[in-house]
Amino acid sequence: MNTSFDFGMVGLGVMGRNLLLNIADHGFSVIGFDKDAEKGASLESSATAGTTVKGVTTLEEMVKQLAVPRKIMMLVPAGKPVDDVIDSLLPLLDQGDLIIDGGNSHYTDTLRRIKYVSDKGFHFMGTGISGGEFGARTGPSIMPGGDIKAWEIIKPIFESIAAHVDGEPCVAYMGKGAAGHFVKMVHNGIEYAVMQLICEIYDLLHRGSDIPNDRLHEIFKSWNEGELKSYLVEITADILKKKDPITGNFLVDMINDKAGSKGTGIWTSQDALNLPVAIPTIDAAVAMRTLSGFKDERILAARLYKSDFGKITDAESFIKQAEEALFAAILISYAQGLAMLKKASEELDMAIELKAAVKVWRGGCIIRSVLLEDFYESFSSNPQLTNILLDTEIVKLLDSKQHSLRAVVAKVVESKIGGAALMSTLAYFDAFTTEKMPTNLVQAQRDYFGAHTYQRIDKEGIFHTEDWAS
Amino acid sequence: MNTSFDFGMVGLGVMGRNLLLNIADHGFSVIGFDKDAEKGASLESSATAGTTVKGVTTLEEMVKQLAVPRKIMMLVPAGKPVDDVIDSLLPLLDQGDLIIDGGNSHYTDTLRRIKYVSDKGFHFMGTGISGGEFGARTGPSIMPGGDIKAWEIIKPIFESIAAHVDGEPCVAYMGKGAAGHFVKMVHNGIEYAVMQLICEIYDLLHRGSDIPNDRLHEIFKSWNEGELKSYLVEITADILKKKDPITGNFLVDMINDKAGSKGTGIWTSQDALNLPVAIPTIDAAVAMRTLSGFKDERILAARLYKSDFGKITDAESFIKQAEEALFAAILISYAQGLAMLKKASEELDMAIELKAAVKVWRGGCIIRSVLLEDFYESFSSNPQLTNILLDTEIVKLLDSKQHSLRAVVAKVVESKIGGAALMSTLAYFDAFTTEKMPTNLVQAQRDYFGAHTYQRIDKEGIFHTEDWAS
Repeated sequence: MNTSFDFGMVGLGVMGRNLLLNIADHGFSVIGFDKDAEKGASLESSATAGTTVKGVTTLEEMVKQLAVPRKIMMLVPAGKPVDDVIDSLLPLLDQGDLIIDGGNSHYTDTLRRIKYVSDKGFHFMGTGISGGEFGARTGPSIMPGGDIKAWEIIKPIFESIAAHVDGEPCVAYMGKGAAGHFVKMVHNGIEYAVMQLICEIYDLLHRGSDIPNDRLHEIFKSWNEGELKSYLVEITADILKKKDPITGNFLVDMINDKAGSKGTGIWTSQDALNLPVAIPTIDAAVAMRTLSGFKDERILAARLYKSDFGKITDAESFIKQAEEALFAAILISYAQGLAMLKKASEELDMAIELKAAVKVWRGGCIIRSVLLEDFYESFSSNPQLTNILLDTEIVKLLDSKQHSLRAVVAKVVESKIGGAALMSTLAYFDAFTTEKMPTNLVQAQRDYFGAHTYQRIDKEGIFHTEDWAS
Repeated sequence: MNTSFDFGMVGLGVMGRNLLLNIADHGFSVIGFDKDAEKGASLESSATAGTTVKGVTTLEEMVKQLAVPRKIMMLVPAGKPVDDVIDSLLPLLDQGDLIIDGGNSHYTDTLRRIKYVSDKGFHFMGTGISGGEFGARTGPSIMPGGDIKAWEIIKPIFESIAAHVDGEPCVAYMGKGAAGHFVKMVHNGIEYAVMQLICEIYDLLHRGSDIPNDRLHEIFKSWNEGELKSYLVEITADILKKKDPITGNFLVDMINDKAGSKGTGIWTSQDALNLPVAIPTIDAAVAMRTLSGFKDERILAARLYKSDFGKITDAESFIKQAEEALFAAILISYAQGLAMLKKASEELDMAIELKAAVKVWRGGCIIRSVLLEDFYESFSSNPQLTNILLDTEIVKLLDSKQHSLRAVVAKVVESKIGGAALMSTLAYFDAFTTEKMPTNLVQAQRDYFGAHTYQRIDKEGIFHTEDWAS
C-alpha cells in the first residue's frame, strides 16, 4: 500500500473534488474520502493525466495512506458534520497531524474546535476558501488562520494551488485563532453587498430605463474593462447574454426572484452587531434576500398599493451615472467590511493585518476586483488605517463620484424601483462623513424616559436632567 | 413579624422602586430588597401615606415576610445578575412560589430559566415592562408570558397597576415560553426605529431648513395633537423647548451625539436575522447609534470629503411633508416589528396573539401611539394578518402618504443630511410592494459561481446551468 500521499480530503462535493484536483495538478499526490463511491470514482476519472489521485470510501483507508504529518482538509457542510468528521478522524491520527476545516464554519465553532483538537495533540486550522467551483479547480483565494505551526506545514501546498496576482500567491496567514474563517465570513458579507448593488443597478437600467438584456450585457462588459473590473461584474455580463434553452428567452428573466443563502451574510450582520460596527450595506443586502422570500405577501401588497413605478427617461446619461454610482457603492461596501475586520481583530484579539486580507482577495475569490489593488496600496502605506474611506488616495477616487451615487439614489426614490443597498450605502457615507449626527436627540429621549444620562459637548462627565418636561 | 406582604421586589433601582410604589398605591403591601440600605430607606420614604412599603437588606428577611404563594419580581441588569438572584432565592422558597423576571432578559435566557426553575417545582415568568421610570410609577405596559398558572396568580396585581386605555388594562398574557420577553424586545426594536426617525426629521428641519428649536417645539407639539400623537413625539416636543441651566442654550444642542444603548435593539436585529425576517428600519436605527460612536473618524472624514450639506429652501411646505413622512415611516416601522413577532411566534412556537401585543402597547409604554388603535382594529378583524401593511384600512392610511415619504427622502439624498432610517423605510416599502425584485440576478450569480441552483418562474423544480459563460 502506498503510504506517501501528500494530502487528504474529506468530502468530495464540488468544492472538495475541485480543490483536490487542483492540488494534484501541482504535483502533490492526493487522496479523497467520500462515503459515496461514485464521488470517489468521479474524482479519479476527472484527474489530469499523470497526476496521482485516489478516491476511497472509508476514513481509515485514507488516513493509512497519508504521509506523516498528515495533512487532511474537510470540505463538508458547516455545523455538526464538521464535528462528526473531527470525532471520526481523531482516533485514526498521530500526534502532530493536521486537520484543516476549509468550509464556511462560524468563527466561534472554529475557536471551540481549535481548543478541542489541539488539547489532544493535533493541529487544527480554520481556513476560508473562496473562488467557487471554478476557482477551487484553477486557483482559489485561501484564508488560513490560527495555528502558526500548522501554517508552516501547509504553506507550500497552499502557495502552489492558490491564484496568483503579479507573481504573488493569493494566500497568506490571516491571524490568530479563528482569523481565517472570520476573514472569509466578512468576504462573504461584502459579496452579498456587491451582488445586491449590481442587482439594483441592473433593475434601474432594465425595468427603469427599458434597456434590454443584450444591451445590458454590453454595458456590464464595458464596465468590466474599466474601474469596475471585477469577477462579479464580469459574470453579470455573461449572465445577461445567456439564453434559456427551454424558452429561447434570456435565462435571467426566467429565474424566480426568491434568493437563497447559506447564511454567511446573516452571520456577518450578526457579528457586526456584537462588535459593534456599522455595515448597513451588507445588512440591506441580507434583508433584501430575506424579503425576496416573502413573495406571496409582496404580490398581494403590489396590488393593494399604488406601486406602479416611474420610468427613467434620460437612459443614456443615466448609464454613465450608474457606472460611477456602482463603483462608489462597491467601494463603500468594502470599506464597511474592512472596518469590521479591523474592529473584530482588536475585539477578538486576532491580529489580522488588513494588508494581508486585501492581498489574498486580489485574485481567485468571488470579490476580486481591481479596487483591491488600491486598498493594498492604502494598507501598505498605512497599516493602522481604521477605515479605508480615510485614506487620501481613496478620497480622490470616491469624492468625485459621490454626486453620481446621489443622482442614482434620487432615481431610486423617484422611480419607486427599490434600491435598499444603494440607499444604505449613501446613508452610511453621509453619516460617516458628518461631524454632527442627530443622535444627540436620541440621548435626550433616553435620558427623558429612562434616566440613561448623556454626555455634553462642552464639558466632561455624565449628566442627567430630572425635569425635562418643565 | 408580619408575614403577609403581597409582593416582593429584588433590586430597588429606579424601575424596581417605582414599580413597587405603584403596586403599593393599589392597596398591596410590598417589600423590597436591595443590598444597599439607602435604597430601601429611600423606598420607604417615597411611599404614599397609608401604603405598606418596607425595604430590607437581605433576601431572607424579604422572603420570610411574604405571604405564600410568594410573588417575587426581579428588576436587575440582564445576564448573570438574574441567574445569581435566582440561585440565591431558590433555597428560600416553597413549592408553588413565583419568580418574575421583569427586566430585559434575552428570550433564550428566559427559556433556559423557565426550565431550570420549573424543574425544581417553582413558577417562573419572563415579563416585559415598558414605560420608563414614570410609567413604572404611574402605570406601565406589562408583557407577561410563559407559565399560564403563574399568570393567573399575578394577574390581579398586574391588572391593577398597569396603564389603562378605555378602561382596559395594558397587560395581557403574551404567549407561551419566553413570549413576554420576546414581545418586549421587539417593542424596544420599534422604539429604536421611531426614535431614529424622529431624529432624522428633526435634523432635516433644524440643520436642513434652519428652523429654530422653539419653533420645532411648536411643530412637534402640534403633530402630537394629530395623527402622530404618541409618547415619543410628545417628549420630543418637551425636549426641544428645554433650556440648559448652565449655558442658557437649548439643552438638546449641548448634548453629545454619541448615542448609547442597552443592547435590546441589537438583539432585535440579530434575532430577526435568525428567523429570518426583514426589519431594515430597526437595523438602520441600530447601525446609526453604532456609527454615532465613531465620532473621531467622522470628524476626520467630514474634513476629507466634500460633505457640506445643502439647505432645504421651501421650509414651510416641507414641514407638512415631514409630518406625513414621519407618520408613514413610523407606521412602516411598526409593520416590520409586528411581522417579526408573527414569524417568531410561529418559528419559536410562542402562540403570540398580535392583537394582545398591540393592546398592551396602547398605553403606558414608550411606543404608545394612537396608531396602535388602528392596529388593534386590524388584528381584531383579522387575527391571522401576517403584515399590517396588508390590511385594507392601513392601506388607506398609508397609500396617500407614501408620496410625502418619497419627497422627504429625496431631500435627504439631495441635502446630504443623513437619513438612514427614512431611506431604509422607503426601501422596505418599495421592496415589499413589488411583485418582482431583482434577486433573480442574485440567483443567477450564485448558480454561476457556486452551482447553488435556482427556481424558474414557468416550471416547478430546481435548476442548474453548467455553461453560463458560453
